[in-house]
Amino acid sequence: MKTRSSNRRDFLKSGAGVGGALLVGADSGNAAPNPQSAQPDAAQPAPDDPTKVPGVPARPYGERSRFERILRTPSPQGTSSGTPLQDLTGIITPSSLHFERHHAGVPDIDPRRHRLLIHGMVDRPLILTMDELKRFPSVSRIYFMECSGNGYRRKGGRTVQEAHGLVSCAEWTGVALSLLLSEAGVQQGAGWIVAEGSDAAKMTRSIPLTKAMNDVLVAYGQNGEALRPEQGYPVRLFVPGWEGNICVKWLRRIKVVDQPYMTREETSKYTDLMPDGKARQFTFEMDPKSLITFPSGGQKLPGPGFYEISGLAWSGRGAIRRVEVSVDGGRIWQDARLQSPVLPIAFTRFRFGWKWDGAEVVLQSRCTDEHGDVQPVLEDLVRARGENWGYHFNPIQGWKVSADGSVQNALA
Amino acid sequence: MKTRSSNRRDFLKSGAGVGGALLVGADSGNAAPNPQSAQPDAAQPAPDDPTKVPGVPARPYGERSRFERILRTPSPQGTSSGTPLQDLTGIITPSSLHFERHHAGVPDIDPRRHRLLIHGMVDRPLILTMDELKRFPSVSRIYFMECSGNGYRRKGGRTVQEAHGLVSCAEWTGVALSLLLSEAGVQQGAGWIVAEGSDAAKMTRSIPLTKAMNDVLVAYGQNGEALRPEQGYPVRLFVPGWEGNICVKWLRRIKVVDQPYMTREETSKYTDLMPDGKARQFTFEMDPKSLITFPSGGQKLPGPGFYEISGLAWSGRGAIRRVEVSVDGGRIWQDARLQSPVLPIAFTRFRFGWKWDGAEVVLQSRCTDEHGDVQPVLEDLVRARGENWGYHFNPIQGWKVSADGSVQNALA
Repeated sequence: MKTRSSNRRDFLKSGAGVGGALLVGADSGNAAPNPQSAQPDAAQPAPDDPTKVPGVPARPYGERSRFERILRTPSPQGTSSGTPLQDLTGIITPSSLHFERHHAGVPDIDPRRHRLLIHGMVDRPLILTMDELKRFPSVSRIYFMECSGNGYRRKGGRTVQEAHGLVSCAEWTGVALSLLLSEAGVQQGAGWIVAEGSDAAKMTRSIPLTKAMNDVLVAYGQNGEALRPEQGYPVRLFVPGWEGNICVKWLRRIKVVDQPYMTREETSKYTDLMPDGKARQFTFEMDPKSLITFPSGGQKLPGPGFYEISGLAWSGRGAIRRVEVSVDGGRIWQDARLQSPVLPIAFTRFRFGWKWDGAEVVLQSRCTDEHGDVQPVLEDLVRARGENWGYHFNPIQGWKVSADGSVQNALA
Repeated sequence: MKTRSSNRRDFLKSGAGVGGALLVGADSGNAAPNPQSAQPDAAQPAPDDPTKVPGVPARPYGERSRFERILRTPSPQGTSSGTPLQDLTGIITPSSLHFERHHAGVPDIDPRRHRLLIHGMVDRPLILTMDELKRFPSVSRIYFMECSGNGYRRKGGRTVQEAHGLVSCAEWTGVALSLLLSEAGVQQGAGWIVAEGSDAAKMTRSIPLTKAMNDVLVAYGQNGEALRPEQGYPVRLFVPGWEGNICVKWLRRIKVVDQPYMTREETSKYTDLMPDGKARQFTFEMDPKSLITFPSGGQKLPGPGFYEISGLAWSGRGAIRRVEVSVDGGRIWQDARLQSPVLPIAFTRFRFGWKWDGAEVVLQSRCTDEHGDVQPVLEDLVRARGENWGYHFNPIQGWKVSADGSVQNALA
C-alpha cells in the first residue's frame, strides 16, 4: 500500500518540509510555553505507540493539548491582545483566545460583593447583586464583537491576527437591559443612558435610550460559563453590533439621562478627524467586513494545487447576505459559499474552492450585509474620510501569494 | 435612594442568606481549588474598590476568574466526567467542561506523528498526516453529543450533572468523511466502515456506510480551537446525532468493510437485554430528550415569586420543534419558548416564565422533534423494554420543589 502523498494526483503536496505552514499551532515554531498546561512540556516526546500506554483519567476542568501553541498577542503596553483568527476554526472564538482591550488593566472583582446601580431619570432606582440579576429572565445570543480600532490607522500587520485580531465571536448570555430599565421605570424626557465600569479607568460611554431598550444585554455568561475577567467579569454591557468599547465591562452603574455625557471615551478617543476639521463622533455601528483567514499573511502554501479559501464576514447592522472572493486581484468576483447558520451580528464562515496554478496572485474577499451595505475598497474610504481617521477600518483586505507560496499583506 | 431588595414588590427576595443558592459557582461552598488559576486563591479578598487598583495586563491565553468553581465530576474510576449543565448558560458547552468518557484513559499524542489510515475495500488506500487532512475542504457545525449511557440504569443522581451530565454541545470542525472515502474510492460490495482509536482500548465501532457517506465528520476542531485531548486530539470521528461512543476518538484507522465487525464495544457493551432474551444492538440514534436545568436538583429557591424555568432539549434525529413544561406534576402542559437559533442535532435552550406560590410542586419538561417523536415517560420505557436496560435513557425528568424551596430529583 502506498501513502497518500506518493500515490495520488498532485492534489496534496504538503511534504515534511513545508507542511508545518499548514498545521495549526503545533508546527508553528512558536516556542512560548503553554500557560495552561500542567502536563510535561512539548519538548518531551509522546509515546511511540499510544495504544501501549494507559491514558490519564478524567479531570474536573479540561486543558488543551501540550502540543498546542496558539496564543493571543498582547500589545507592548498590555492594553489589548488579538485573536489568532488565522488559526481558528468555525465561528465560535474560545473564551481563552477572545480578543481583549482595556484602558486600565483587568480588575480583580469578587462577584459576591459586586453591585449594579441603575439610577438617574428613573422612578425606582435599583441596586442589584449578581444573585438578583440572575433571577431575571435571560437570553443567549451568538454575537461578534469588534474593537472600533481594529486595523487602526492602517499600520499593516503581517498576519490576520496582527492586522485585524481585535474581533471575535462568542455566545453571550444576560438580561435584556430593557427589562431592567422597565423595572426601574424610565422617566419622561430621558433619551440616553451612561454606562460606567468598575475598572481603574472607570470606562464610561453614553448610549441612546432607543438602543438600550432594543437589544442590549447586561451579560454575565460567555460561551456557556461565566464571563472571563478580561471580558468584564462578573457583568458587562453587550451592545450588539456596536463598537466593542461601548460594551462597558465590569459594569457597575447605568444612569438614565437626557443627553450624551461627552465622556473622555467619546471625545478624546473613539472619534475621527475629517478633512473639514469636524470629527465623526458616536460612530456606533460596526461596518460590514470580511477577511480571508486562509490563506493569509504569514502562512505558506506548499505548492500549486487545490485549496479551500476560507474566511469570516460580519456586519454590525445584521446578517451577512453575500461574500464574494477574487483570486485575480479584484478583476473577477465570484460568490463564496456561506456556511450555516448565518446569524445576524455574528461571524459568518465562508468557503471557496480554488486551484492555484503557482503564479503570484492577490486574494480578496468582499461582503454585503442584509441592508445591501458593501465592504468598500481603501481608496474610497480615504477619499471620503481623508488621512487622519483610523476607527472603523473595514476595507477589502488583500493577501498576496508569491510564486514560492508565501503569503503577504497586500494592503500594508 | 433605596435598594432593590427593600423597595420593590416581592419579585426578588434573594437576601444574603439564601442568595448563594442562585449564584452560579462563586457561592456554592465548593472549596475545591481552581486548577486553571495562576492568580491567588479565592480566599484572598478582592480590593474593596476595584477602581482604585490598576488591573492586570493582557494575557496570551485567558483563564477564568479565581472565584469560579464550576467543575466536571469525574467518576470514581476516572473513566468519565459529567458537564455541570445546571450551572451553564446558552447552548455552547465550553471545551473545559465538555463531558468526557474514555475506556482506557486519555492518550498523549503528538499531532506531528499521528497518521490516519483509510483502507479495506477501497481502490486507493490513504495514510494522512494532520497537515494533509487539513488541506481538504472542511465544515463546522454546532452539534450536541450524548453518551448512550447518560442516566444509565436510572440510578438517580442529585443534580442534573449527576443524573444526566454526559451530554454537551459544541461547534465541531472537520472534513466530511464522504470526501475522504471518495478520494479513497469505495469498492462495490462495501456496506460498513470500522473506526479505530489509538487509545489503549483501541476503541472500535462499526458504522453503516450510508451514515458514513452522509454527515459524518473527521473532526479536528472544537469550539474554534483544536480538539481537547479528552475529546480525541488530534482527530476524532464525529457521527452527528449518534451515540457518543461511536464518535471514535484519537482516530487512527478507518477500514471499509462489508459487514459490522461485532467488536467488544457493540456486543458486550452498548447493547440492552430485552425481556424476551434478545438484545437491542446498534441503537445508533440518540432519542429526543429534554431537561429543566433551572430549577433543578440540589438548587434552592429563595422563596415564592417569579422564576424563569430554563432548560435544554435535543434529538439525534434532527431539530427540536416543541418543548412543553408542566408545573403541576404533569396534569397541564404549556409550550415553552424556544430560543433561536434552533439548530438540528444541537442543544435548544427553552424558557418558561413561572410564578411559584410556595407550595410543593413537580416541574417537568417534554420535547418533540421535527419527526414528531416525543420524549416518553419512564413507565412507557419500562413497559417496552423491561428492567434490564440502561442505554438511551430519555424519559421525562421531574424535579420536586419542596415548600422550603429545596429541589430534588423526582425520578430517583
